[in-house]
Amino acid sequence: MFNVRQAVILGAGLGGRLRGTLDDRPKGFLELGNRPIVEESIAKLVHTGITDIVIVTGYCHKFYDRLSEKYPFVRTIMNPDFATSGSMRSFYMAAKYVNSDFLLLESDLIYEYNALQTLQKSPFDNCILLSGKTESGDEVYVGINDDRVVNMSKCRDDIECLGGELVGISKISLELYQKMTNIFPEKSKHNSQYQYEDCLTDVSNSIAIHYQCVENLAWNEIDDENHLNKAREKIYPLIIQRDSEIIISKKVERQVLLNPGPAATTDTVKHAMVVNDICPREKEFGDLLEGVRHDLVRIVHGEEAYEAVLFASSGTGAVEACLSSVIPHDKSVLIINNGAYGKRMQQICDSYGIAHIDYNLDWGESINYNKVEELLEKYKLEISHIALVHHETTVGILNDITAVARIADKFGVEVIVDAMSSYAGIPIDITDSGIHYLIASANKCIQGMAGLSFAICKKESLEKTKDIKPRNFYFNLYQNYIFFTQKHEMQFTPPVQIVYALRQAINEYFLETERGREKRYAEMYEVLENGLRMLGFRFLIKEQFRAKILTAIIEPEDENYCFTEMHDFLWQRGFTIYPGKGATEKTFRIANMGAITKQDIIRFLECLKEYIVMENIKLK
Amino acid sequence: MFNVRQAVILGAGLGGRLRGTLDDRPKGFLELGNRPIVEESIAKLVHTGITDIVIVTGYCHKFYDRLSEKYPFVRTIMNPDFATSGSMRSFYMAAKYVNSDFLLLESDLIYEYNALQTLQKSPFDNCILLSGKTESGDEVYVGINDDRVVNMSKCRDDIECLGGELVGISKISLELYQKMTNIFPEKSKHNSQYQYEDCLTDVSNSIAIHYQCVENLAWNEIDDENHLNKAREKIYPLIIQRDSEIIISKKVERQVLLNPGPAATTDTVKHAMVVNDICPREKEFGDLLEGVRHDLVRIVHGEEAYEAVLFASSGTGAVEACLSSVIPHDKSVLIINNGAYGKRMQQICDSYGIAHIDYNLDWGESINYNKVEELLEKYKLEISHIALVHHETTVGILNDITAVARIADKFGVEVIVDAMSSYAGIPIDITDSGIHYLIASANKCIQGMAGLSFAICKKESLEKTKDIKPRNFYFNLYQNYIFFTQKHEMQFTPPVQIVYALRQAINEYFLETERGREKRYAEMYEVLENGLRMLGFRFLIKEQFRAKILTAIIEPEDENYCFTEMHDFLWQRGFTIYPGKGATEKTFRIANMGAITKQDIIRFLECLKEYIVMENIKLK
Repeated sequence: MFNVRQAVILGAGLGGRLRGTLDDRPKGFLELGNRPIVEESIAKLVHTGITDIVIVTGYCHKFYDRLSEKYPFVRTIMNPDFATSGSMRSFYMAAKYVNSDFLLLESDLIYEYNALQTLQKSPFDNCILLSGKTESGDEVYVGINDDRVVNMSKCRDDIECLGGELVGISKISLELYQKMTNIFPEKSKHNSQYQYEDCLTDVSNSIAIHYQCVENLAWNEIDDENHLNKAREKIYPLIIQRDSEIIISKKVERQVLLNPGPAATTDTVKHAMVVNDICPREKEFGDLLEGVRHDLVRIVHGEEAYEAVLFASSGTGAVEACLSSVIPHDKSVLIINNGAYGKRMQQICDSYGIAHIDYNLDWGESINYNKVEELLEKYKLEISHIALVHHETTVGILNDITAVARIADKFGVEVIVDAMSSYAGIPIDITDSGIHYLIASANKCIQGMAGLSFAICKKESLEKTKDIKPRNFYFNLYQNYIFFTQKHEMQFTPPVQIVYALRQAINEYFLETERGREKRYAEMYEVLENGLRMLGFRFLIKEQFRAKILTAIIEPEDENYCFTEMHDFLWQRGFTIYPGKGATEKTFRIANMGAITKQDIIRFLECLKEYIVMENIKLK
Repeated sequence: MFNVRQAVILGAGLGGRLRGTLDDRPKGFLELGNRPIVEESIAKLVHTGITDIVIVTGYCHKFYDRLSEKYPFVRTIMNPDFATSGSMRSFYMAAKYVNSDFLLLESDLIYEYNALQTLQKSPFDNCILLSGKTESGDEVYVGINDDRVVNMSKCRDDIECLGGELVGISKISLELYQKMTNIFPEKSKHNSQYQYEDCLTDVSNSIAIHYQCVENLAWNEIDDENHLNKAREKIYPLIIQRDSEIIISKKVERQVLLNPGPAATTDTVKHAMVVNDICPREKEFGDLLEGVRHDLVRIVHGEEAYEAVLFASSGTGAVEACLSSVIPHDKSVLIINNGAYGKRMQQICDSYGIAHIDYNLDWGESINYNKVEELLEKYKLEISHIALVHHETTVGILNDITAVARIADKFGVEVIVDAMSSYAGIPIDITDSGIHYLIASANKCIQGMAGLSFAICKKESLEKTKDIKPRNFYFNLYQNYIFFTQKHEMQFTPPVQIVYALRQAINEYFLETERGREKRYAEMYEVLENGLRMLGFRFLIKEQFRAKILTAIIEPEDENYCFTEMHDFLWQRGFTIYPGKGATEKTFRIANMGAITKQDIIRFLECLKEYIVMENIKLK
């Protein structure tokens, strides 16, 4: 749920000061509520998104081994020297399983959920959790300098500038862990009681270890009877209370997605998914859907004569819904194919045995409109529909849907447009263009989340499909439409949270306005195109045919160039680029859609340049 | 995004003290950044999920009217007496459009985003936002008593116990607004300068008006040149900075869903959807999918021989995928139909022209296993598959899938099970039961979100379907499977955020354990069944056949009984119940699945009893 997904629990200790109470259990198996404290800790970890928990065991390790049988996400590893070694020896053992940044915890802790949330939210890869004064009698004081931890000690006088008291929960990066495990063998030679706190101090000058102090944190380490009594009487009830009131909050890291969708979204669209549970057959949800359906049509200016039909599916689902539902069994569809998505329409028709006449071009070649007219003339008795892609994201070409629709109109042929990656990015007037079916999805230029697709259908045309024998069930356009209009519900369970996100995304579209979004995308394109050209890259598509939302860039022939390496270099810097797809020349692709800005493109170009220079890639 | 979705902005004022600066603009059209402050306010409202903004205009109202043309979610209404009346007169005008709880704002405010978030998060329906000391020279002091507002005044001495200073942003319930508009006509007779603050004070003894004080809030009302200068130099830059650092957080209200899915989810599953944007074709996401696929199989103990195939669709989609993909063109499927979902399988087959032999029972009637054997014997040359529903949610009956599979095995017939609402609620051992395809979705007993369905397929069987000519494209089981195994990606764009939620839901399932979940559901059922029986309700299905996850209750014949009224009464108290569906007797339904507890069921029964008694409904 948060970024860190692994945790290491140190559970090897003897618990000598609690021997009487413990009997033959490790300290983690003390119970304050209705299960051992280590299981409460595990539950909290899972509730912050931890999916892999490594417990280093020792004393009475079988207790922990049984946990690993109970919970598939728990693994144990034993420290054979638990009785004689310091905690760093145990921590060292975890190396076998550690493969990412992780949370480190001691097994004998009780703590409020917020302790984990604080670390998970911290912007630092290495972060030690501190608290204010506990007067536990067993404090580990943490010395700081600016925003870094510099030393730790049980003796207050060893600390010059006090950051707080060590809780025993830390976020440790893989890098930090490796530094620690590197120095451990040497250090342990001289000090069998070498603790992980010592090791943190020892490496703190070579790597930044930050801290986060929560003044009033409810927590307790349980080392002796006094701790146990205090925990039972005071701290544990406080933890229960605080955890019942917790408000989960998280700051997501910004990623600049330059792939052609799912596009980057705003934080507010992301959080719009967090809503009260609701049954989508309730009126309240029906009203929400009605508003969304209405506004999806409004975005392409079709309020007068069009209806939106929604599907829980990827965009391809809605394309399949249209093609399989609207073409009469005795008719054909003319499909224009100048990219992968044109081809996909042919594949869909093939699956259903729908007759189609293909106008195949090279991927990236622009449409010859005279040829379209010729084909319509030639097959005028059989063709009922023409289908094409508006913005063909394979190559970034923009097909002129209005020109095609004007020709189709002469022949009384209806027009199906896959506008997946142009809808809400490039202004469309569906009424004026004369399009009958326009298909898109929630996760591209409208800047919502994936999982919802829709067809905007001319009502008059849709009504005519009523008597076409269905070719499938889930994707029958008319049935889905009529179900909603009659029952104010979707026929099949909608992706509830994705609808809320789309509602928010639509609001933000209207806030930006049609012109505002077009302008932002255009400005990003301009900066991108200019920057790429200056670097020496060449483009697949002629300027005049470009959609300017996605750019297909011809791959350099230089042997130093490697897409995967370039991708990974940029990925590490927060940029996601995309490979090419079946064009006449080898390409990679950069999209400029979604909740990103001109500044992001400028930063991207800087990183790209850095890579090109570093790898000494020659561009013609 | 939050609960309140409407806002009212009071923008009628003359702005007399800023005449020189304003020229002929309303105060909301002052600019500190690159657009008028009222547009900045509107943007913040939209970003807290407001979808309907009513602006009461007056002086230079055309400026606002142009905003309503620019933004489809803005409506204006003019106060014709703006020059001579107090602010309550303007507020009164908004009644024409107000239809829900709303946020009330003054038009001449600049404020940080957190101001709105604080009100949206407040548990109170009526909540006035206060700040600490501003020394603006224009303070409205707010007097409080306990947690309620009791009066307001510009004179500090009028206030006995000070809550803080009025910001001019409030959350107003429809009920409070109605009280205010009710008293306004009379009050305004005696005081033409009646302000909305006066009116709030006047009604504060008859309705609880709460407050929330944010000590250090960055905000400014701009009434004169001094305010403007302070805003420009100090407050506005502070707001920009704070807004750039905001962490969105919200507390969702708990709803007890008793409908048969989408089921209630934990807050942690809800928040698991809030993640960094990611392109689902990246390896990181592929790894996530791989883990989810693996664990979905693990839940039904099929790790050895089964594979999960995921679809972006509702559960029906995955049923359609199985039926349309696995039955050879020259074979038939025997479909057992004792509820709506059995019937749905027949409908799916009909759409595709797949031959099916039907074993139709009354909805709610239990399967006669001898009859199944008879049918398999009779049609043994043509039947390749048998399909049935495990837990038929129409009526709450549990069909014995193992018994059916044992019979099928004798005839070499493969078994397709729709386990939509049993998967992860009732333990299933797919291997031991001998099932070939098991279908479910993410939003029922596994307690994830809607938008993702899956089929758990015996690998050996799946491989055999390779050569069956596809009947569709999106839902072809084999193609979706092979695409993932070859490319480590889903064939079609997955619902990214729903996958993250499912990951979290699976972790929480393993945390609860198979037995733990079964036990929790069983305890809820026991309390429910017992409570309903004590109230006098009767059940549709005999005890021995019940799934105990959904209970179909026979509707009372008493004329005082009305499902809709009962539903609405319970809905208002946080419980969602569900109508019946086509059983032999009229029923309504209560499910006990999802992230709810025995205590919820107890509270539900109390509310139900309250309703029964109140309406004097006789139950036999």
